[in-house]
Amino acid sequence: MNSITTPTLLIDEEQCKKNIAAMMERANKNGATLRPHFKTHQSAQIGEWYREAGVKKITVSSVSMATYFAQHGWDDITIAFPVNIREIEAINALAQKITLNLMTDSYEALIAVESQLTAHAGCFIKIDTGYHRAGIPAGDFTTIEQLMDIISKCQHLTLKGFLTHAGHTYHASDKAEIAAISQSAVAEMMHLKSHFHAQYPHLIYSYGDTPSCSTVVSLPFDEWRPGNFIFYDLTQHLLGSCETKQIAAALICPVVACYPERNEVIIYGGGVHLSKEFLTEPNGSRNYGWVVPITNNRWGTPLAKTKLISLSQEHGIIQTTPENMACFTPGDLIAILPVHSCMTANLMRTFRTTTGQIITTLNSD
Amino acid sequence: MNSITTPTLLIDEEQCKKNIAAMMERANKNGATLRPHFKTHQSAQIGEWYREAGVKKITVSSVSMATYFAQHGWDDITIAFPVNIREIEAINALAQKITLNLMTDSYEALIAVESQLTAHAGCFIKIDTGYHRAGIPAGDFTTIEQLMDIISKCQHLTLKGFLTHAGHTYHASDKAEIAAISQSAVAEMMHLKSHFHAQYPHLIYSYGDTPSCSTVVSLPFDEWRPGNFIFYDLTQHLLGSCETKQIAAALICPVVACYPERNEVIIYGGGVHLSKEFLTEPNGSRNYGWVVPITNNRWGTPLAKTKLISLSQEHGIIQTTPENMACFTPGDLIAILPVHSCMTANLMRTFRTTTGQIITTLNSD
Repeated sequence: MNSITTPTLLIDEEQCKKNIAAMMERANKNGATLRPHFKTHQSAQIGEWYREAGVKKITVSSVSMATYFAQHGWDDITIAFPVNIREIEAINALAQKITLNLMTDSYEALIAVESQLTAHAGCFIKIDTGYHRAGIPAGDFTTIEQLMDIISKCQHLTLKGFLTHAGHTYHASDKAEIAAISQSAVAEMMHLKSHFHAQYPHLIYSYGDTPSCSTVVSLPFDEWRPGNFIFYDLTQHLLGSCETKQIAAALICPVVACYPERNEVIIYGGGVHLSKEFLTEPNGSRNYGWVVPITNNRWGTPLAKTKLISLSQEHGIIQTTPENMACFTPGDLIAILPVHSCMTANLMRTFRTTTGQIITTLNSD
Repeated sequence: MNSITTPTLLIDEEQCKKNIAAMMERANKNGATLRPHFKTHQSAQIGEWYREAGVKKITVSSVSMATYFAQHGWDDITIAFPVNIREIEAINALAQKITLNLMTDSYEALIAVESQLTAHAGCFIKIDTGYHRAGIPAGDFTTIEQLMDIISKCQHLTLKGFLTHAGHTYHASDKAEIAAISQSAVAEMMHLKSHFHAQYPHLIYSYGDTPSCSTVVSLPFDEWRPGNFIFYDLTQHLLGSCETKQIAAALICPVVACYPERNEVIIYGGGVHLSKEFLTEPNGSRNYGWVVPITNNRWGTPLAKTKLISLSQEHGIIQTTPENMACFTPGDLIAILPVHSCMTANLMRTFRTTTGQIITTLNSD
């Protein structure tokens, strides 16, 4: 730890493996296959931690990620992003090599993909269960059947099933609201299943999002696709998805200046490290991260009444109490629990475990 | 342009050079040396555009950036960030090679740096003229004199001058407010100068920030350190720093899905490309970027009543009008004017000019 000179994303491998094991157990109890989303870490090395836990199928959100993980031995990948026809060359290269599942809700995209595919791919129809980002409304059987009909006539595409992402759980205020949202999504997807199951008994009903998969007891889907749970973060903690001790990623930052007259501290650690995502405090102020002292090569318990109130490109400003000012000295290191670990991991690109191992990712140099 | 398959940061080299020339002219008229901040682009190739315009001295915000630009022939660099003593090894390597200026406002940091420096470096004292991020209040002559006294006794450090950054201009609502903030900073820095000038006639009074340097007619400092002006962005445009046609960077994104029933479009382009910085609309909603059609390998005029209302990791959602829905078809490309070009450029790492040249940066693979 003492060799750290610049902002460094520290990963607690042991806690990550516990988070994976807990999610595997939850999925198993529901009879679901865990197809974890790898956009959170984007790392082949971390992928191996999942493989050790028995994971064989994964989800990604870009063709680049799919290509990277295919190069690292993953042979069953769903790209849970509306198919980008401009990347057909890379899609064809992947489809020739692995079991690749695409996703769409668009007639035009289906026609364009089919006309340019040179190898076989699976296809999920994206279903909207209330998030309203992408997808066909779950109750719109007419449009869904039209797409199914087109896919059935495609030479290179096979319908795999229906995929939904209840991303609006991220706007919930507590576990009860997460449960209500996911119950509504369950009801919509099960209504879809009751409509199509007799005719298409082998279709997969696939469900995502870490808040639901971490907190809801019963999620009767064939496949779960949460991603963030490997690291968790403050957003998840405040939603009720995890305890703070389950947060397995923290940004280690050098303290560079202390202002006891205003109880503020400047760290080397800014928007290019943490991202500019923030929590909104009850008084409307922004909180870009919780501040945690470092002991024994691991971060400890968050400091009370201490938060990251502002981020510039490279600077962060911590506001604390007169008593806690003693925790900060220029040249020391401090840990920040990130608001959104996926964004922080994407920015940091290379990580370091608490045992000193270097973790590379798709975006590493 | 047609070869673009994934989100790509397009740079208008001609407009960048116009922006550099205009800032050079403004600095020259004020008798100031332009020491531009290179954190905005972090690119050696773009650095050459400045060199062609006569720039010889630069500003950066990290030791890594200083090392990168020193490797690319820049030999007079100020690191405008509170000196991070944990990077003393890299600082020494730089100080042995180039004219390096450090910055501090801390007694402890000065003592620590001096005790570990093995080569000569300049030192700026950071002055706070109202932004309250870092610095000694401009009127606190006692503390400033204490630091000057310590520096005068340092074997490896030479006092270069006083450096301030009026970053609170970014919170201004218009040019008049920018002028008021910068006039206050000018008054404070000139008061400092009147106090020290007789005894220390050669000290440099250094001033930053693109809003002030782009809009205020008289800024009587020895040195200007704006950075963002090479690209500008929506934040600068709404502050009054630039016209939209001066914005020289746009993210080119593939359209992947269209929802005419709700006048929304999904693009491949999310928080990992643009960053999660947003503008707040008068009704309180968020705006993550303006949307611009592409014609003749350049982006045109922003579409009316059309904005990027939401960003996920890889997705962006555009909200538009029924009439403008015709501008979007899956597979097409669309341009997004970024809210904060520094953050977008940092995320994108490799850029492309409108004439097809690839631009690499410190963060490129």
